[in-house]
Amino acid sequence: MKKYVRSEITAMQGYVSGEQPQGDEVVKLNTNENSYRASERVYEAIRQAAERGLARYPDPLGKAVRQEAAKLFGVDPESILCGNGSDDLLTILVRTFVGRGELIRMAYPSYILYETLAEIQGAFCEKISFNADWTLPKRFEENPSDGFQGRENNLRLVFLANPNSPSGTLIPKEKIREIAERLPCPLVVDEAYADFTDENCIDLVPKCEKIIVCRTLSKSYALAGLRFGFLVASPRLVEQMLKVKDSYNCDALSIVAAAAALGDQDWLKENRRKVLATRARLQKRMRKLGFDVPHSHANFTWNTRSDRPVQPIYAFLKERGFLVRYMNFPGWSDGLRISVGTDEQNDRCVDLIEEFLDRT
Amino acid sequence: MKKYVRSEITAMQGYVSGEQPQGDEVVKLNTNENSYRASERVYEAIRQAAERGLARYPDPLGKAVRQEAAKLFGVDPESILCGNGSDDLLTILVRTFVGRGELIRMAYPSYILYETLAEIQGAFCEKISFNADWTLPKRFEENPSDGFQGRENNLRLVFLANPNSPSGTLIPKEKIREIAERLPCPLVVDEAYADFTDENCIDLVPKCEKIIVCRTLSKSYALAGLRFGFLVASPRLVEQMLKVKDSYNCDALSIVAAAAALGDQDWLKENRRKVLATRARLQKRMRKLGFDVPHSHANFTWNTRSDRPVQPIYAFLKERGFLVRYMNFPGWSDGLRISVGTDEQNDRCVDLIEEFLDRT
Repeated sequence: MKKYVRSEITAMQGYVSGEQPQGDEVVKLNTNENSYRASERVYEAIRQAAERGLARYPDPLGKAVRQEAAKLFGVDPESILCGNGSDDLLTILVRTFVGRGELIRMAYPSYILYETLAEIQGAFCEKISFNADWTLPKRFEENPSDGFQGRENNLRLVFLANPNSPSGTLIPKEKIREIAERLPCPLVVDEAYADFTDENCIDLVPKCEKIIVCRTLSKSYALAGLRFGFLVASPRLVEQMLKVKDSYNCDALSIVAAAAALGDQDWLKENRRKVLATRARLQKRMRKLGFDVPHSHANFTWNTRSDRPVQPIYAFLKERGFLVRYMNFPGWSDGLRISVGTDEQNDRCVDLIEEFLDRT
Repeated sequence: MKKYVRSEITAMQGYVSGEQPQGDEVVKLNTNENSYRASERVYEAIRQAAERGLARYPDPLGKAVRQEAAKLFGVDPESILCGNGSDDLLTILVRTFVGRGELIRMAYPSYILYETLAEIQGAFCEKISFNADWTLPKRFEENPSDGFQGRENNLRLVFLANPNSPSGTLIPKEKIREIAERLPCPLVVDEAYADFTDENCIDLVPKCEKIIVCRTLSKSYALAGLRFGFLVASPRLVEQMLKVKDSYNCDALSIVAAAAALGDQDWLKENRRKVLATRARLQKRMRKLGFDVPHSHANFTWNTRSDRPVQPIYAFLKERGFLVRYMNFPGWSDGLRISVGTDEQNDRCVDLIEEFLDRT
């Protein structure tokens, strides 16, 4: 069997996403889903599209979403590329810009999928560690170093999740522009969580061709099950990426649903208000319990502590039906990433953590 | 801009799919969609899933479909891989098996996307022409020849659409097994249209590890808008492909819808009966009008003629709101591929063709 498969694939581990039990018994606070129901306009759009029927191929470009997103962000519809979740977009980006043996750069710790995509492509991945305060070192915008010397001309794509996961921290926009201008290749700003903070980089795209911004509807629009994301980039780059994407990468239901979701900014505003309130409450209680929690700009918090291991807390919660994400980043530290759900979900979760700490 | 993009991508043209006007004014007979509405069980499943909500990530493996397909075809659920349309599966196949500079083989004329996927991967594509009667020459199962000599050890994947498009013709199952056994690499039997004929290769999969069968719900299940396909392969190969696919490549609605579609075999049987009846009628009339039409095993017919050009017929039909597919295969011939719709749609289409032939 192995002889048929590319050696890069047999050698790799494969990305392991958060656990996804398919049932209602568990309080899921492990993959940063939204605990609220999406705008009813979304569900109404799905109902109507299903009524019209699914026998025909969908619009290859997702024009309805392009128009809605262009209006919302004040950009050209041709600068929008729709994807089957932002993972699809990240895959398209790597396949468009990075060849075998070339180099991808990512900040670390962050979304490990960037490294997996490099592996699949037979590319190298340079992980540059954040500073202890989650700012970026100068090296992030400089020529490759360490094991990657000699690859100066091979740096083809740089990924920055902003706000970052697992930390929830934010690199300021002016800093990102500075980084992009110094880099020899495009900088992908993965803004999966940007709706939960106050600034984003979309208006930098028309000013700097090297900046590409990715968005998903999985988090702030409560539509992880729908699989829809879009990116904003120079139309000339989008044109090239269109050659790489599958012809009909977004289905007919997701296109109308995504357009409806983007069209209901009142829903987003109200959802954001609730999530931010619960986040503040969660952050405060976790700090009070002795965790180090960097200020979160996303819909989760990153909780570490140096006085005791945190994995037993994860296990304790899981036994009681609460899933949070235990993450261990070699060369960095481990911690618990807890999604912001409803007040009740997070309160019960922190109650259990308190119970565990009292006991042990 | 060009300096950022891989040279393989800037150099390529990009796959051009059939026209997809998004409206009801046109009678679409150009991309082999189904003119009937899918089973109501499908729409009921979508309704229920939307009711439950889309805030959570979908099942990464599409277990509900794996189980349904396994039951239907008498194979192991672990031998099923779900995809966001069969294009997603074809992409996963190429990325799993074929590296840069390696070789893909396809029968020609056939689905040109296979060649596009090779280009994106930086691989070579050897197109081996069918014989004039749409059988395969011996070369299809032999070592690379012509421009591809010296690449003997680099043949990594072979594609065979069966039934084939645009011809609608079928290579017998026993012949396919023979080919697979002689090839040094996996043979992908793309069975997008297999529900419209009498045999298929799924039961060969457990007998020959080199055979991989792809299916789509776009044609026979009337769900092109849904984007769902699956493949059947040795579980050991599926395990490797799982590393390459996006974690959540199929959305929550499409998983329940696909399981419901596969679960309603009575609908499929009845739909097939209607399509086959219309196909026979279409074939007969087109032959009577002087077209060469190989016997079709699919939901379309391939119509050529040596006495006059056919592109003007395409243009005449388009002006009158009937879209068929004009296809021109360099080194072969051109023709009209006409999808089988309802009796009424195809009758009106052929009436127009008759009108055109009478006039000119």
